[in-house]
Amino acid sequence: MDDSREKPLQALLDPKSIAIVGASDNPEKIGGRPIKYLKQFGYGGKIYPINPNRAEIQNIAAYSRLEDLPEVPEAAIIALPGDGAVEAVRQCAESGVRAAVVMSSGFGETNDIEAKNKEKHMVETARRHGMRLIGPNSMGLANFANGAILNFTTMFQEATPEDGPIGIISQSGAMSVVPYGLLRQRGIGVRYIHATGNDADVTTLELASAVAGDPDLKVLLLYLEGIPDPEHLLATARIAAGRNLPIIALKSGRTPAGQRAARSHTGALANEDRVVDAFLERCGIWRAQEVQDLVRAVELHLKGWRPSGRKLVAISNSGAICVLTADAASLAGVPLATFSEDTREELGRILPSFATTSNPVDITAALLSNSSLLGQILPVIAGDPAADAFLIGIPVAGKGYDVPAFARDTAAFARETGKPLVCAIPQPGVAVHFKEYGLSVYPTEGEAFAALNQYLSHVERMSQAYPRLLGDHAVQTPVRRHGEKVDRGKERLLNEAESLTLGARFGIPSIPFRVCRSADQAVEAFSGLGGPVAVKGCSSDIAHKSELGIVHLGISSEEALRQAYSDIEGRIAAADSRFDGVIVARMFKGQCELMIGAHIDPTFGPIVMVGDGGKYVEALPDTQILLLPFAEEDVRLALSRLRIAPLFDGVRDEPPLDKEAFVEAVMAVGRMMSDPESRVLSADFNPVIVGPSGGGCAAVDALIILSEPPTGADKK
Amino acid sequence: MDDSREKPLQALLDPKSIAIVGASDNPEKIGGRPIKYLKQFGYGGKIYPINPNRAEIQNIAAYSRLEDLPEVPEAAIIALPGDGAVEAVRQCAESGVRAAVVMSSGFGETNDIEAKNKEKHMVETARRHGMRLIGPNSMGLANFANGAILNFTTMFQEATPEDGPIGIISQSGAMSVVPYGLLRQRGIGVRYIHATGNDADVTTLELASAVAGDPDLKVLLLYLEGIPDPEHLLATARIAAGRNLPIIALKSGRTPAGQRAARSHTGALANEDRVVDAFLERCGIWRAQEVQDLVRAVELHLKGWRPSGRKLVAISNSGAICVLTADAASLAGVPLATFSEDTREELGRILPSFATTSNPVDITAALLSNSSLLGQILPVIAGDPAADAFLIGIPVAGKGYDVPAFARDTAAFARETGKPLVCAIPQPGVAVHFKEYGLSVYPTEGEAFAALNQYLSHVERMSQAYPRLLGDHAVQTPVRRHGEKVDRGKERLLNEAESLTLGARFGIPSIPFRVCRSADQAVEAFSGLGGPVAVKGCSSDIAHKSELGIVHLGISSEEALRQAYSDIEGRIAAADSRFDGVIVARMFKGQCELMIGAHIDPTFGPIVMVGDGGKYVEALPDTQILLLPFAEEDVRLALSRLRIAPLFDGVRDEPPLDKEAFVEAVMAVGRMMSDPESRVLSADFNPVIVGPSGGGCAAVDALIILSEPPTGADKK
Repeated sequence: MDDSREKPLQALLDPKSIAIVGASDNPEKIGGRPIKYLKQFGYGGKIYPINPNRAEIQNIAAYSRLEDLPEVPEAAIIALPGDGAVEAVRQCAESGVRAAVVMSSGFGETNDIEAKNKEKHMVETARRHGMRLIGPNSMGLANFANGAILNFTTMFQEATPEDGPIGIISQSGAMSVVPYGLLRQRGIGVRYIHATGNDADVTTLELASAVAGDPDLKVLLLYLEGIPDPEHLLATARIAAGRNLPIIALKSGRTPAGQRAARSHTGALANEDRVVDAFLERCGIWRAQEVQDLVRAVELHLKGWRPSGRKLVAISNSGAICVLTADAASLAGVPLATFSEDTREELGRILPSFATTSNPVDITAALLSNSSLLGQILPVIAGDPAADAFLIGIPVAGKGYDVPAFARDTAAFARETGKPLVCAIPQPGVAVHFKEYGLSVYPTEGEAFAALNQYLSHVERMSQAYPRLLGDHAVQTPVRRHGEKVDRGKERLLNEAESLTLGARFGIPSIPFRVCRSADQAVEAFSGLGGPVAVKGCSSDIAHKSELGIVHLGISSEEALRQAYSDIEGRIAAADSRFDGVIVARMFKGQCELMIGAHIDPTFGPIVMVGDGGKYVEALPDTQILLLPFAEEDVRLALSRLRIAPLFDGVRDEPPLDKEAFVEAVMAVGRMMSDPESRVLSADFNPVIVGPSGGGCAAVDALIILSEPPTGADKK
Repeated sequence: MDDSREKPLQALLDPKSIAIVGASDNPEKIGGRPIKYLKQFGYGGKIYPINPNRAEIQNIAAYSRLEDLPEVPEAAIIALPGDGAVEAVRQCAESGVRAAVVMSSGFGETNDIEAKNKEKHMVETARRHGMRLIGPNSMGLANFANGAILNFTTMFQEATPEDGPIGIISQSGAMSVVPYGLLRQRGIGVRYIHATGNDADVTTLELASAVAGDPDLKVLLLYLEGIPDPEHLLATARIAAGRNLPIIALKSGRTPAGQRAARSHTGALANEDRVVDAFLERCGIWRAQEVQDLVRAVELHLKGWRPSGRKLVAISNSGAICVLTADAASLAGVPLATFSEDTREELGRILPSFATTSNPVDITAALLSNSSLLGQILPVIAGDPAADAFLIGIPVAGKGYDVPAFARDTAAFARETGKPLVCAIPQPGVAVHFKEYGLSVYPTEGEAFAALNQYLSHVERMSQAYPRLLGDHAVQTPVRRHGEKVDRGKERLLNEAESLTLGARFGIPSIPFRVCRSADQAVEAFSGLGGPVAVKGCSSDIAHKSELGIVHLGISSEEALRQAYSDIEGRIAAADSRFDGVIVARMFKGQCELMIGAHIDPTFGPIVMVGDGGKYVEALPDTQILLLPFAEEDVRLALSRLRIAPLFDGVRDEPPLDKEAFVEAVMAVGRMMSDPESRVLSADFNPVIVGPSGGGCAAVDALIILSEPPTGADKK
């Protein structure tokens, strides 16, 4: 990242002076509320309201024009509509303002060409003068570390702000303050609440990368409608990796309907959702499905736990909570810890005979007659090293129970173990005692488990991704370089023989074959290859051969071969397609048909796909995505996530598949896609027949599309 | 159901008199709290505390012994531990008490044989005298219509009770009062809170069937750890169907870990979870996954809406809420309604140019400057018939907004449309205005959508299941009849030929085949059948032929046939298995390998399974369950839910499959399983090869296990 471009963002996060263009004396107007907030939340720099009609605005000296200010302000808020905003951007840029927040709507997010052009114009003007721009259509930025609140949200008067270890960077105004409000309801302080709007210049993710380095930040939350700039996401993730900062992202526009809505909201362009998933995973970022996922586990990340596994112990005074938690854990793939015999015996000495001393531990309603039971068993459980995390469910308590003791004993247990712990307590009056000790309380065991599981899974994801992000084998940056070289207007379809040959150059194994231009050649090839052969028409005009009936398998006599040859030649001629000859190929006896695909994502660059192969690839998809660059272990992980994964180990009387041969073939496709000289736009090796262990694998069909080199413009 | 057994339950729901055996003067003890509640919540009948040491209990005249009472009480609470409870049950039963609630723990839910026997003894004693028993290990029953609170939960002092249209019947005490507490937090009144415990005599479901007829009940909630008595579930569902009462059930013990926990909680035996799913669907009951699912949609069921579809309209002042709702709807398969051109034009006249006038409707932050926008657009949207349901999201409001007007306008809109509507409002201070109008408010659009979707899906499920439950073709009752006839100790494995022949008797098509006891017979069969044949060893000792290498396909010469014959004979001999001959069968040229399975579930009776067939049936399962009796439309629905469903319509160059032939074969398996004379314990037709449309289908392998008829004891 270039320094001169990054610094101006500091002018937004920690400005020495702020001009408000379109300042209002009314603190409930867009041009008035930021001034009110700057005063209210202790901003220490200079505030310059600009309004041609007033000498004072909210008791601060106002100026008619930007030129009248005693100094060039570092930052500006622009709260004028339409052309007024465009003009204000020009004046700010020309006078040397380093960064401006444009709050006005009605630009790039509309369907109006003129309005869109105005936005373009604003950005061009700003860039010409080295000024950075947030928005337009931005609710603004807020930094409660220094009171720099360049933000017109009403939410800071609804939920009292408090500086804290959380940053929220959102393209949407509402989605910046909704998680803010939910976190404040849980008593958690939030430092940054930044809503960027149309992202015409500075994007959500660029701003995120500027914030991620703040050493006080403990969790970073993102709301995104589009990811046009994965390089900023990667930069943010690298900074986060360097300080083990968890990032949770809610990326909407998952579906075509959501993408349409996003286009008219922030003008965001659609991303392929599975690629977003893969990219976020590679970056160690947890993907939230909805707002509650964004905030649910935040407080768990603040505890400073260092979980080393996922084995759960559940404890409750209700057997039903034990059953429900065991179900939830099993369904989520979270194992239940097994206590030692000693632990069970000791628990048995404390609990009544009808209680359960294995995990989950059911204290039973006996807790009502003897409130000390919880406090007695917790130290025993703390002494057993089997557990990695705990869920304590108290669905019923209150009068008749010693609730303060429950809370105190649980807090002591949490301190003693230092391990992740969540509580499930539906009664607000009971929960309050636990919250006083800083314990994390959720209303039901379902919600408590979901938060714990998200936390543990996220930590696991970070521990896998972060060391790698800091090493050499990270995701490609900039990921689009290869894609950008490509002129999508000029594509060239390779025929099967050319495709297999190109693949072979990179090490993708294929069956031995010959391209024959006459029946005699075909017969010669047949005797050379030996055994039954496959005979297939070859034409760069034809993508789907089997529909055209130009594939003949298991040909084992010269007579059948000649007949197949002439039949294929005739059909290709009848289809008015180019005849590139007939492929005569050895039949490969394998055990399973897989596929390897590859294409260039317009945003994320080259992508490789692996999965179940054959003719049902589209009808019954079972594929996994690999981002470049990838290692063999990534391929194995991807294969383990396929529905057909059990087949690799062999099923019933089948031997295991030659997985390693297939992994090598996938690596070869990765090399082909990461080599810009290969000019491959997309590749489809399907099927790749995989033999039993040691039997290798071979692509028996392939279809590659190349980009034509720009004619005579290669060196430009 | 037999009348004399049903009536005693009325003695629990509306008892004229109640004895409390083990009554305590301390209202915080198990034997004291019910007395306190009976007095507090206006019970109008007689209360008879029984305690040999006191003349008065909680200011009510007490009696030493049951015999001393001036009358035989209708109901009794038994709050004595261990043998005291057993003795009290005896006394109550002998003196003519009609029903008793045993609160004491430490019986069938323990691992102790003696304790289990005491429970058995209590039940036997009660049954001998016609007394019904709730529990043991029961928290008790509560009926707030008449104040009959035979319950020791502390929750009625934590969350103030109010009679209302909800019934909660739960095996677990905690799971009866947790949903109670959550509903009370949302201001919803609850009539019944019944916790049955060990279900040694009266089960949760029998009690549910006794309650479901209450005409004031609008929603029935169930928590179950086991379903030993589907006939009571069915009876409850039939009553519900008769009055369109929604039932939501949380059935835990979904996983082996959950089932283990359930066994030590209520002694519940495991059910096969997929069969439970299918049975609940057939009964029109919504299955909750966790406690929040149990309560989330309850208030929506109370509105009296009559939704006729699922097309959603979303409206928000935040574009992000629009995007997130569109995503959530798409992912749940809920379509977004399309407005008419007129509606869009009218919305365009009201809203600013940068707003969105298609669905979802984005009012934008312009609502902050003009609070009347919501009130203006709602009547326009109400006038468009496209919508079936609405979600209104106000993520940000408060000061600066006319929140009371938003609430009033939304309420008017809800009245005018009469269609389902949910609100997503995270700010408690804003939400309260909407709640005052009786609108259903959830904190986030995710939660609001989840509630709405659950409600709409449940109503759809009811509309499919309920008419059928009232008709002739309901689920079998009693479902276990066929299973009960079966002596599982005596099973007989039929060989392939016998299995196919038995199947054919019921109309299950198979390939033409002959069983040959000599190579010469095989050659004769070969020429009779014509074309290449399959040659397979036949042995009632061998379930998996291919592992043994006794399947030879595509045999097309006499020489090969003879060799196959002797090879098979040799291998069966080497495996020391019974030789039932060799099957010579015509090769069936089909397009797809499916399977039909059947077995007898110990609880739910005969079950038929359909799905993807072939050798990967267990490794890559893709099956659906059919409960008996089923109709052709049930089979088609089950097939449409398979992963491989797209194959039925033909993929790429393939013609559609002969689905109807396969449906007929499945119907035939259903007939076989519902015919008790067939004595089939399990059947496995795999693969059933299905040809292209019109090409029929044929089972090419089969394995049936029969029960042997009880020797000489058939008529007992």
